[in-house]
Amino acid sequence: MNQVNLKRLAQELNLAVSTVSRALSDSYDISEETKKKVLALAKKLNYQPNPFARSLRNRSSKTIAVILPEIANNYFSVAINGIEDVAQANNYHVLIYITHENLQKEADIVKLLLNGRVDGILMSLSGGSEDTGHLKELQDSKVPVVFFDRVSDTIETVKVITNNFESGYLATSHLITRGSQKIAYLTFSGDLSIEQQRMKGYMESVTNRGLQHREEFIVRCNNNSEENYQKIMELFSADDRPDGVFASVESLAILAYEVCSELNLRIPEDVKIVGFSNLRTASLLSPALTTITQPAFNMGQEAAKALFEALEKPHVKMENRTIVLRSNLIERRSTASN
Amino acid sequence: MNQVNLKRLAQELNLAVSTVSRALSDSYDISEETKKKVLALAKKLNYQPNPFARSLRNRSSKTIAVILPEIANNYFSVAINGIEDVAQANNYHVLIYITHENLQKEADIVKLLLNGRVDGILMSLSGGSEDTGHLKELQDSKVPVVFFDRVSDTIETVKVITNNFESGYLATSHLITRGSQKIAYLTFSGDLSIEQQRMKGYMESVTNRGLQHREEFIVRCNNNSEENYQKIMELFSADDRPDGVFASVESLAILAYEVCSELNLRIPEDVKIVGFSNLRTASLLSPALTTITQPAFNMGQEAAKALFEALEKPHVKMENRTIVLRSNLIERRSTASN
Repeated sequence: MNQVNLKRLAQELNLAVSTVSRALSDSYDISEETKKKVLALAKKLNYQPNPFARSLRNRSSKTIAVILPEIANNYFSVAINGIEDVAQANNYHVLIYITHENLQKEADIVKLLLNGRVDGILMSLSGGSEDTGHLKELQDSKVPVVFFDRVSDTIETVKVITNNFESGYLATSHLITRGSQKIAYLTFSGDLSIEQQRMKGYMESVTNRGLQHREEFIVRCNNNSEENYQKIMELFSADDRPDGVFASVESLAILAYEVCSELNLRIPEDVKIVGFSNLRTASLLSPALTTITQPAFNMGQEAAKALFEALEKPHVKMENRTIVLRSNLIERRSTASN
Repeated sequence: MNQVNLKRLAQELNLAVSTVSRALSDSYDISEETKKKVLALAKKLNYQPNPFARSLRNRSSKTIAVILPEIANNYFSVAINGIEDVAQANNYHVLIYITHENLQKEADIVKLLLNGRVDGILMSLSGGSEDTGHLKELQDSKVPVVFFDRVSDTIETVKVITNNFESGYLATSHLITRGSQKIAYLTFSGDLSIEQQRMKGYMESVTNRGLQHREEFIVRCNNNSEENYQKIMELFSADDRPDGVFASVESLAILAYEVCSELNLRIPEDVKIVGFSNLRTASLLSPALTTITQPAFNMGQEAAKALFEALEKPHVKMENRTIVLRSNLIERRSTASN
């Protein structure tokens, strides 16, 4: 079957290509009769205008990009659903790029997107992204960007986050109330502002409750699951091991469960655990995991809404504004009192 | 800062736009000296050709689409990583579309993609997709498609699946060996060929082992989690309830856990459960879930490889071929003998 393009429509109707084109764009110099004929055939053959030709004409791609550190993560997969919800309502396409926490990859992706492929970008930073050139380039470009969850402090635009400091404080205080005295903090690379806020909450809670701050209880993890497992294993194998864990990333809470199982440490009797997590099965884990649960779907929606607002006002500079959506502490058996 | 386009390069070098354009495409009628100057400035200013202009010229978008029923599912999120791995190696962009098991949405997405926006499509069908017009249109178009996991029997192309019949047979026989006599089968809409194969495996195992086939033990679920929960609740509330469950979809195994917890049915003592699942935390559930685990990453990779092979031979018709990658039964406590 021939492709259905302007040429094909023109041939079948015995008209000039330019006539067909003007008929489709409802030009005043084409008769109503001709327009009707052209539209009827276009409908019959399911003619779709070439998107690239249209994008070139309109300087709009009807596409946004979402740049994420990872996808096999419940927070991000739910947030994508929220983004998609808003994008579909606006008849936009969604390109998804995964950086796998690799800074160079993130920089390459951003460069690729600065040439008009997308109308806007939603972005959650990979670890180590702060203060690097590609974000500066992004801000200097005409492509609007909205950050969500892992946001940049240095770029002036809309950012959607949760109340990271309070959540860190709340999680740690909860562990202390339930009886933990030696609380470990598991985190990814500490230079992301959300990680810094969560850790600040942890530290203030420890200090305010009169516990000793111990640097060796802060475990900085990376993208290598094996290495992270080893680090957590070392922490719990020590004689003076923690009796409480606050994991700032879902996957680290799961690793803590695996390490405790390996070392025959009982949760919550020997070690209490709370984790930032949107894991759907948190309540079915053995034991059920106490979580700080982010409003992932809403965060994706809010970020996308802010981006589409910006797309409607292409000549207005993005506002430097932070939208904070609150997380909830959901108490389960992993932090029960002894 | 001005956008870096051909015009800007031409202005800075005091050359005609057409000269710059031909220099960049290494045209024979431009001097080596001019080419060097143009390339040097293009590099310095990080010039990126307009992707839509290039796509129009080359009739290639350097983009593939992935159409999925859902994303908050461990199988698909791991499969996407496999697809992305191959796409990045081929310098391609990946568009992701989610149908939410909605057939009309799937049809709309396919229509949108038939006009040159993407060079190829990777697709996993939503329930109820068989024998519908949009797949026929897809086959008649010039856009190559490769199916993975939830494949179409009617469209002739490359399909990547797991050994669904054997896996269904194996899972059911495993339950019988461990002592289950009344085995329920939880499935999504039964018209997908992979669901039919899994169910056929279940039925043959039941019959071969001399157990009674009971139609009321086959629960057909849909995209509404609340309704599914109610259906499973009814099944287990009956006096003559099942003592074994084979869930052909991950989310249904999780619902079965929740129903058992609600009804105070003990797993595995009262009910044994096995599920198709790539859940990372399967071993941490209470009790650990016995799974049929698909090689999700490899399935994504193989599907993407087959698509890129097709893209390299645009004038060759897609082979009608099925690639089968084997799943594993991973035995855990949810199916332990009493």
